[in-house]
Amino acid sequence: MKKLRVEKVLQGMERKGLSQMIVSDPYSVYYLTGRWIFPGERLLALLLGTDGKHHLVLSNLYPQPEDSDLEVTYVDDIQDCIEALAVYVKKGTVIGVDKNWQAKFLLRMLELNPTNTFVNASAIVDDVRMIKDEEEQELMRSSSLLNDKAVERLTAIAARGYDEQQLSDELLKIYKELGAEGFSFEPIIAFGRNTADPHYMPQHAKAVRGDCMTFDIGGKKADYCSDMTRDVFLGTVSDRQREIYEIVLEANLRGITAAKPGNRMCDVDLAARRYIESKGFGEYFPHRTGHSIGLEVHEFGNVAYNNESIIRPGQCFSVEPGIYLPEEGFGIRIEDLVLITEHGCEVLNHYTKDLIVIPFE
Amino acid sequence: MKKLRVEKVLQGMERKGLSQMIVSDPYSVYYLTGRWIFPGERLLALLLGTDGKHHLVLSNLYPQPEDSDLEVTYVDDIQDCIEALAVYVKKGTVIGVDKNWQAKFLLRMLELNPTNTFVNASAIVDDVRMIKDEEEQELMRSSSLLNDKAVERLTAIAARGYDEQQLSDELLKIYKELGAEGFSFEPIIAFGRNTADPHYMPQHAKAVRGDCMTFDIGGKKADYCSDMTRDVFLGTVSDRQREIYEIVLEANLRGITAAKPGNRMCDVDLAARRYIESKGFGEYFPHRTGHSIGLEVHEFGNVAYNNESIIRPGQCFSVEPGIYLPEEGFGIRIEDLVLITEHGCEVLNHYTKDLIVIPFE
Repeated sequence: MKKLRVEKVLQGMERKGLSQMIVSDPYSVYYLTGRWIFPGERLLALLLGTDGKHHLVLSNLYPQPEDSDLEVTYVDDIQDCIEALAVYVKKGTVIGVDKNWQAKFLLRMLELNPTNTFVNASAIVDDVRMIKDEEEQELMRSSSLLNDKAVERLTAIAARGYDEQQLSDELLKIYKELGAEGFSFEPIIAFGRNTADPHYMPQHAKAVRGDCMTFDIGGKKADYCSDMTRDVFLGTVSDRQREIYEIVLEANLRGITAAKPGNRMCDVDLAARRYIESKGFGEYFPHRTGHSIGLEVHEFGNVAYNNESIIRPGQCFSVEPGIYLPEEGFGIRIEDLVLITEHGCEVLNHYTKDLIVIPFE
Repeated sequence: MKKLRVEKVLQGMERKGLSQMIVSDPYSVYYLTGRWIFPGERLLALLLGTDGKHHLVLSNLYPQPEDSDLEVTYVDDIQDCIEALAVYVKKGTVIGVDKNWQAKFLLRMLELNPTNTFVNASAIVDDVRMIKDEEEQELMRSSSLLNDKAVERLTAIAARGYDEQQLSDELLKIYKELGAEGFSFEPIIAFGRNTADPHYMPQHAKAVRGDCMTFDIGGKKADYCSDMTRDVFLGTVSDRQREIYEIVLEANLRGITAAKPGNRMCDVDLAARRYIESKGFGEYFPHRTGHSIGLEVHEFGNVAYNNESIIRPGQCFSVEPGIYLPEEGFGIRIEDLVLITEHGCEVLNHYTKDLIVIPFE
């Protein structure tokens, strides 16, 4: 068990009046125990108790090292695994569960323990995970440094005639060569009009002269995620593309300036959003400005106009405004990760945001 | 909407007395609508009604083509998405939900609609998905044919000195070259004593002479999964390894023989398991004999000793008995996919199960 992290979660449970909580998310279990267990459809349940009694209930396919702070119960594929977990749940109390706990487990638990009330208590763990400790801050820096190199190498080969999917395959090789475990998410590599879809997945488009190319990419290094978006132009850039690029860049910079302790998360969103609106493109920026990131590429804590939570040192999130113009056949998004410091933020991405036109005949 | 498939699901709902069901699993949504939507942490809910009124409620980041059979409701990142879904849910009724629906959605729905009872109804959709139609059968064959080629090419390069992770990286290239979209699951490529762990993940072991190498691998082609396990020996094989290999192979063959309509799923498991037990290795075969497969690598319908459901034509599942001997430093598993026909089964894997010793100096 990672004692300091568990201690913070137990404090959060006490504040919410919970004496027990079921943590099932593999990333949270790793965060709290240092153990990676991906059980697929099988049960993984870390039952934390404010009385200091913690249980791990999981499939016997995942044998665990001994840990005096954690009592491990194994279930096989035939047993009712929730029955095995339910014996440790205190009757008549409110029990926290993870936000993604599967309905098959939760509904069975409701059946077996009708005197309990279950509440979504992920925010307790997520709130602790949101503030990166020093070890994690160093890992986030290191992961984004790798991403800087990856986007540089990707840009260098982008004009070689690969289609989107092929370029994505090349990117995976680049990450591996640079020492990443792999992607932190399936990259968005979009050419031409596909850049106008903010959640496009690479297909087989080939780029032609004058195309915008969007690279929204991230790798995973030592379990921590990076995430950055850059757009480059093939051979030439139109005045309109340049105009939109500059608006999005200014929105990105304004978002970053607002990313500091004491401001609210929505202040970052609104700093970017209000600028884009002032230029008349508000309706073409349909998504939140960013998301928290760490062990997972999307973590708790949105950079959204309705998130009034106060920014604290140690938070790490993306600032990624965009403008998407399907009728004009292109879209632009510029994204950096920021790590909140005592008085402002450290931008974790260093690859240039100058407008790049790649030579192309 | 895929009308025939939806019709079968509605019939299943009527048999269970459900007038509405919320399908949230992206694979099931694809199966029923032909649309791939991976919403991550956002809501995706296909609300099916036996009255023929079907709703799709999802994030506005995933704009959908028009479909007269389906009313689409978009929510943005700020809205309470469950509130948007709840207005279509009939009060006071029992509502089916998918087994993996996230607790954050289910608990909010319970709050908003306290007069409803929610039950895990995935089995209704899963039961339809379990019987592959002709189009799917052809896709399953084609995916496994590709896997036959992949394992052949993998075996050909296995003695070149790659470590497990490097060989796994090579395998991904092989799949892509053969026209697969990628892995259907993270491959289990294990050398030497790592083969004694049935759920090992590739690390950086290098194989030495006399090592068993286990390849439990699958690719995805046209959205359908393959999955096969073969073991090869590097340079030489011991009598003990050969003895265990032959027991596992016989168990695999007995399982396949039992895979026919009219038998129960457990008959397949027990045919393999009883044979391994008769040889004295029952305790070294700790997992089920197999799992159903299709759009997902693990689908509903376990080949397990407690699954008494009757096997029907169109089912597709794995037969993968194994014996794992950590104290002797190796394990063996042999796996094929079978497709149930009118009178027996078609084995979808054609790569040899003869014991292979790869030349190695």
